[in-house]
Order: sequence, then structure tokens, then C-alpha cells
Amino acid sequence: MAVEKQRVTPGRITNDTIETQLNHRTIRAFTEEAVGEGVIETLLDVARHGASNTFYQQFTILRIKDPEIRQVVYEASRQEYVGGSRGELFIFVVDLARNVRIRQQVGLGVQEFLKTTMFMQGMEDTMIAAQNMVVAAESLGLGTCFLGSIGGDPRALIKALRLPKFTYPLVGLLVGHPNQEPQLKPRLPREVTTAVDVYPNPDSPSYQASMKRYDSEIQTYYDLRENGKRLDTFTQQISTKPGRGHAESFPALEVLQEQGMCLG
Amino acid sequence: MAVEKQRVTPGRITNDTIETQLNHRTIRAFTEEAVGEGVIETLLDVARHGASNTFYQQFTILRIKDPEIRQVVYEASRQEYVGGSRGELFIFVVDLARNVRIRQQVGLGVQEFLKTTMFMQGMEDTMIAAQNMVVAAESLGLGTCFLGSIGGDPRALIKALRLPKFTYPLVGLLVGHPNQEPQLKPRLPREVTTAVDVYPNPDSPSYQASMKRYDSEIQTYYDLRENGKRLDTFTQQISTKPGRGHAESFPALEVLQEQGMCLG
Repeated sequence: MAVEKQRVTPGRITNDTIETQLNHRTIRAFTEEAVGEGVIETLLDVARHGASNTFYQQFTILRIKDPEIRQVVYEASRQEYVGGSRGELFIFVVDLARNVRIRQQVGLGVQEFLKTTMFMQGMEDTMIAAQNMVVAAESLGLGTCFLGSIGGDPRALIKALRLPKFTYPLVGLLVGHPNQEPQLKPRLPREVTTAVDVYPNPDSPSYQASMKRYDSEIQTYYDLRENGKRLDTFTQQISTKPGRGHAESFPALEVLQEQGMCLG
Repeated sequence: MAVEKQRVTPGRITNDTIETQLNHRTIRAFTEEAVGEGVIETLLDVARHGASNTFYQQFTILRIKDPEIRQVVYEASRQEYVGGSRGELFIFVVDLARNVRIRQQVGLGVQEFLKTTMFMQGMEDTMIAAQNMVVAAESLGLGTCFLGSIGGDPRALIKALRLPKFTYPLVGLLVGHPNQEPQLKPRLPREVTTAVDVYPNPDSPSYQASMKRYDSEIQTYYDLRENGKRLDTFTQQISTKPGRGHAESFPALEVLQEQGMCLG
């Protein structure tokens, strides 16, 4: 196995890969410069080589080149940076259809593929592929932006991308040359999102102190980023945002079931 | 942004990160050597710094140190390599509970968190964190093994890990020093799992030729790995395996709904 040169900095064991990962930011503005066919092939190969639940490999990645189809994705996601032609656009599709077809061809039933469990396994494969592509792209100096927002209109995507039953367009991903350099956005503290053995106790004074510190850290981040126009804490965001985005108020289960999945 | 030194080899643009990713193999045997606290902290930090849908950060990572809890995970997953003490064991938990609590504390309803869409968003965050950890661990020369198998008994894990409502133990991950050097397992061909603009046509002669080539590639792989004891093609595996694993026949939706999620 290829092992990278490792560095031990004060308090951190690191290398180039890890530095890339720790420096992850969402990039929403790209230059006109094309990503290049060689890089795109590499990114797709990396995405294909992640782990896969039971080796079922239940994902398909569509690279969107047709401006009319990109327009459909743009309208589904309602994010202005999806429009136009900057950044390569990929759609990561949960795909049980390939395996369903194999079973039908040998005369087997599909009941195993109707279950929520199988959809979840496909979703795991799909997200492993997507995050693998993100890390590879960022290691090449490219910027990335996940588009959960395509969940705002999955039916439009199913039609435009000609997705068969037993598939679902899960997330989009934009990859391109960054045209912005956003600050690192502070993550919830380690002692809040990680713990040893059992779920962390949110009533403990140390947990509550961590959350309070984090709220003020996020407030400072927005203050610097938006020149004082927004001073939300994390707590305020969670109090106000959920349900407002068009993607998260969309009844995904309905479409999953139309597609033949998550029926039990 | 830190940009790694890039190499252009014949037909491939690459760097250390990408080589690590293309060389991914599942490692199921580990030496006694400990991973080390510094590395574990780095891995957890990398996991925390991935993208997150709408910045809701809906995951929690539990590091399992208590042998009794590890025993529960072992019994749930029924995989012998989960037993014992080799490899660090992490459980990646989809966690909407943290945000539900914030909303309840300010007197808001939780209806947005009952929806399948919100669970899917949390699942995306959780898998991004998990795959980020995998890439970081492999870049340090460590081996990893995803444990989708914990889905064989989520209720046992919910109890042992004291997981509250609005959480779900999605996957386990073993990380350790490899004690085996398996061959690379060939992935489905690029022209099968990726396409431009629209879903690939499985009836096209080129698609069918690719699948046939892949079936014989997989057969050769098993022949070399298992000395001729197993000569499955991919197609044969898909014809026989689904539904046989205890995790995939488990009614996950039932437990998700007991946990207060995926109710619409």
C-alpha cells in the first residue's frame, strides 16, 4: 500500500491528504477554467474505488454536459451557482436497478430490493463514492459544492436523467477551479460530536459550556464573513432554518416509493 | 488552500491522496499494534470537517473502548473480526437528536425532524464523516473495514450505546494496522457505473459486453484469492446473496420509526 510521508506537528499527526481534508470549505463560485478531461476521468475512477456494502456497488454517477439538463438541475435546486456553465456538475444516483435487473434476468424476485435496508445500503455506497470524489478534487486544488438542494424536485431529475425504477438522484456535486477563498467554518466541538462508548450527555455542564463557546465562535465567523449583517449562533440557525429549504420540506419518501424502494 | 504536488502519469493525473484512494481495499485482519491516541484524534478531527447538509452537522461518532460494549457490537454484526481487541472500533451515528433538543429548548416543534428527508440529510452527513475518516486512515498506512453488518441488530446497539430517540447507529468502522495484504478487487467498469447526461442503457451491446468482461475479471480475482474454491461472477453473486445477510434482511424502517424518524 502506498503510504504517504507523515509529519508530526505540535499536537497533530498529519500529511498532505489530511491537511486537504481539514481545510475543506464549500466553494460556490468557480472560474471559467475547465476542469479537464484527464482530471474528470481520475475523479470518476476514485469515486468508483471506494468501499461498497456487500460489494453490491449500488450507485451510478452522471456527469452533466447538456445545458438543457443542467437547466433542469438548476431549477430543481434553485441555487444560482448551479446555473450557467461554471464548474463540472455530477449527479450521484442511488442505483439498485442494475442489480434488480440481474436478478430478473435469472428469474429471481426483487423483494429484497423493496426494503428500506437495501436503499440505505445503496445510499451508503453512493455517499462513499461522492465523498471520495470530493477529497480527490480538493487534493488537486479544486473546489467542491454538494447539492443536497436537488432534493427539491427529484421527479424532474428522474425524468430528465431518464432514471429507471429502483434509482434515486441523491445529491449533486459541483467541482471546479475556485473563484473565492472562504474562511474555514468552525465545526461543532469534538466533545459534542464525538464520545467514548456511549452517547454524550447533553445535560452535563461541560457539554453545555462547549455549545455556548461554539455559538459565540460561529457568531464571530459570520460577523467576519458578512460584515456584521448576520450574527446567528448555531443554536439560532437550528431554531429557524429547518423546514424552510424547499429540498427539506419535500416528501422524499413518496418519490422513493414511486421508484419502488423503501416499501418496508 | 494546500495543494499537493501533482503528477501526470501515462493516462492519469494523480497525487499521493488519489493513489491512496485508488488503492483502497477492505482490511479485516489487524496486528496487535495500537493505532495511537494522536492518530485517533486526527481521524476524529478529519471526520468532523467534512461537508454537512445545510450545516446541520447531524452525526455523532462513538469510539468503542469498553470490551463489553464491543462484545455487543460483535454479536450484532456476527463478523468474527469485530470480536477481540484488534483495530479501533468506531460507530457512526445519524444524529438528529442534538438539533431536535435545541428546537425543543426554544419551544419549537419537531415535525421537520420526523420526515424521511431529514433522516436522509443526516445519513449524508454521517457517511461523509465516515468516508473522510477512511481516506485519512489509509493515507497513514492504516487499514479500514466498514461494518454495515451492525444493521443486523440496531436495537442492541441503541441500548448499549445509550442512543436517544432521533438517532440511529448507521455503520461501524474498524481502523488498525493491516495484518493482511489483499489484492485490489476489480470494480464495475467505468462505462457501467458512470455516464454522461442520462442513465446508461443496459440493453446496449457495449454495456452488455462490459458486464461480461467484468464477470470474467471478478472470476479470475476469486480464483487467485481463494485458490479456485470460489469462482463466482458478479452476476452470480447478485443472483444469490441479497437477503442472505442478517443485516440486509433486518426491517430497518421499523427501528427508524421507533426512533422517531422516517415517519413521512
